Amino acid sequence: MSSALDFMLAARRSEMQGLQALSLTCALVTEVSRLVHALQRERGYSNFCLGGEADSHRESLDALSEAAAEQEIVVRRAFEQIHPESSVGADKARLFTRIAYVLHSLDGLPRLRERVRAESLSAAEATRLFSRQIAGLLAVVFDAADTAVDPRVTRALVALFNFMQGKELAGQERATGVAGFMAGYFDPAVQGKLRFLQDGQARCFESFQQAADAPSLALWQTLCADELLEQIARLRQMAERTSTEQRVQGSLGDVWFELTTQRIDAMKQIEDQLAVHLQKLCAEKIAQAQADLDNQRRLMRQLDKLDHGSADPAVKLYNVQATDFQSLPSEAPGGQVNGSLLDLLHEQTARLQQLQDELEDARQTLNERKVIERAKGLLMKQHGLNEQDAYRALQNAAMERNQRLAEVARTVLSYNDMLKGTSSTAG
Amino acid sequence: MSSALDFMLAARRSEMQGLQALSLTCALVTEVSRLVHALQRERGYSNFCLGGEADSHRESLDALSEAAAEQEIVVRRAFEQIHPESSVGADKARLFTRIAYVLHSLDGLPRLRERVRAESLSAAEATRLFSRQIAGLLAVVFDAADTAVDPRVTRALVALFNFMQGKELAGQERATGVAGFMAGYFDPAVQGKLRFLQDGQARCFESFQQAADAPSLALWQTLCADELLEQIARLRQMAERTSTEQRVQGSLGDVWFELTTQRIDAMKQIEDQLAVHLQKLCAEKIAQAQADLDNQRRLMRQLDKLDHGSADPAVKLYNVQATDFQSLPSEAPGGQVNGSLLDLLHEQTARLQQLQDELEDARQTLNERKVIERAKGLLMKQHGLNEQDAYRALQNAAMERNQRLAEVARTVLSYNDMLKGTSSTAG
Repeated sequence: MSSALDFMLAARRSEMQGLQALSLTCALVTEVSRLVHALQRERGYSNFCLGGEADSHRESLDALSEAAAEQEIVVRRAFEQIHPESSVGADKARLFTRIAYVLHSLDGLPRLRERVRAESLSAAEATRLFSRQIAGLLAVVFDAADTAVDPRVTRALVALFNFMQGKELAGQERATGVAGFMAGYFDPAVQGKLRFLQDGQARCFESFQQAADAPSLALWQTLCADELLEQIARLRQMAERTSTEQRVQGSLGDVWFELTTQRIDAMKQIEDQLAVHLQKLCAEKIAQAQADLDNQRRLMRQLDKLDHGSADPAVKLYNVQATDFQSLPSEAPGGQVNGSLLDLLHEQTARLQQLQDELEDARQTLNERKVIERAKGLLMKQHGLNEQDAYRALQNAAMERNQRLAEVARTVLSYNDMLKGTSSTAG
Repeated sequence: MSSALDFMLAARRSEMQGLQALSLTCALVTEVSRLVHALQRERGYSNFCLGGEADSHRESLDALSEAAAEQEIVVRRAFEQIHPESSVGADKARLFTRIAYVLHSLDGLPRLRERVRAESLSAAEATRLFSRQIAGLLAVVFDAADTAVDPRVTRALVALFNFMQGKELAGQERATGVAGFMAGYFDPAVQGKLRFLQDGQARCFESFQQAADAPSLALWQTLCADELLEQIARLRQMAERTSTEQRVQGSLGDVWFELTTQRIDAMKQIEDQLAVHLQKLCAEKIAQAQADLDNQRRLMRQLDKLDHGSADPAVKLYNVQATDFQSLPSEAPGGQVNGSLLDLLHEQTARLQQLQDELEDARQTLNERKVIERAKGLLMKQHGLNEQDAYRALQNAAMERNQRLAEVARTVLSYNDMLKGTSSTAG
């Protein structure tokens, strides 16, 4: 039967497999971020074409569509790498379903492009369809971050996911702003949407900053210090003051587009830096794990020769409450001591525990995000609110109670569970 | 290249694999619970023998040791079922390491038994060594609950884990009480330990009640209504009032042992019921998943024939904030609609999301437990407290602030992260 050594080595192999899978995931995420960027650009130019400027933008649009289609092939190949047949594991159900969604909607892109060129749909509709596609791709990145097994890689994925999402919201703000400025005014609903998109960006970029590597952060700080942001802020304020009575010149649309596009292009550089950092981290982790595994194999072969006779359960595996009063004795009472094997087990347990703790810290943003999304969904369903109003309700409650958004969301969910608890039976 | 259908089916297969692994885990957990019980009994009788009553208990002890050794073989076989070589997956590192620990300390049992019979160690030391062994086995159960992929099975595992741990604390209370009553008094440190063990039981059994199936709950309520508990409560109060000046008769030790043993035996029945429920749930889940998978395969073969041409990204995969203003249009704009595939994807996503939400609810107790353990460990390390005092510090803070223990623990950890954040650089 298998010995303690067998299981110990197997644990290391399992870690190794996790890191290798992670490496594929990181490569995939990098390609997905490129496809998202390509689709964001294609969406922008599709809007111009559908907004009556087809002639002057048609050529650019064709080039962008082609670039997106090429990147799509790269992403499909990356999906193939984590092919369902070759990958085993119980935790892939969500990722696979999300990929199925993405593949299904990618299949619809050629038709969407035809309709854009035939001008058989509105700019708003085209925006919506491209945005859905992008949302699907972002969901894959979220899932990758959520299932990563290494804390530092998870942090890098969290930074990238939040940045990509912030950039996507910036892209949506750009589109909404262009439409409003071109029309000369923003009605209250659209003003609310703009605020919502701005708040969302702030939240995403805050999470990004908490998790980002130093070079990406430095780039971000340079961008934040740029006077570009002041100019955008002035236009945002201007949009707030417009109404059907208070209009502005339509040409501000071009100014707005120009400024926000500069900002988004600068974001792209940061996104690339985040992806570079991610790949580098993955490579380092795998090299290190491989070296550890080789070391341990050697060590274990030696141990295997020594390991005859002694063994003692005086090992703190798991802190069962009240098992211990005294601190752990480092000597093992009774007879010979198989120190080295115990040391190895100790070390491995401590290391895994620390990894787990760090992983949970790294995932905190993701978990809070899930909690907020769930609470929002609940409010939408129970009170018939739209997404924006549900979010606003949570935000107001957080301000009133001087609590963090995630705490308020947790309260909403617990309260709901409590109500459910009273109306249903246990078991 | 793989299609959306391929990945969708793969997602179902992945779920199926998860459930099959779960079935092995549940079988393992059941056997582990039996071994824990056997070791608890052996520990009790070892104490009697080492307490100077070797002659009258030696025979019983031998029988109990033999029973435990037999059950050990069963557990080792169950470990073999989830053999490292045959099991792939990145998430096994912790479980394998814990099993390695258990195997290593099981190897030390024969020596421990020899020492008990040679009376070459104290009762306290023997208790400590047996308790370590049991703590290792409980850690395997905790890990099984923590990595289970189905919410109802997770709930059943959470109920079982908490119950086993409560029972183990009851066993430790029994041993502590026997020693104290036999000595005729309890000093303040031991009284503190008793309170700690009693609080721990209360917490475990509360968590058990939140997650347990109806028949187990009914058995538990019967036990709680039994006058046995009142008698034990009176002895607990009596122990609180003793001191070196205020002694009681040593024969109370026998009374205490008798009563607490009756209670623990009744607990064993509940534990068995919990295990039966767990096995039944697992079997049901697998049968159901298999039927679902067969259904879906059939459905997909039909879809595969239909699926030519249309596809549209108008699907809400993931709630990217601000993607949507309007609610989801159920019609897919533009051309033909491949309704059935979208419906399937929708359904699968919704189902997985719900599973995930339920799973997170079911794991809440486990997560809170981890948070509390981490906070306790931090206090022990930073303030040089022992486990009991660290727990008491958390408990006092919770009472003062009128917060739940887990909330206080979360605050301790965030505060620590904050401090770390100020002294180290990002990245």
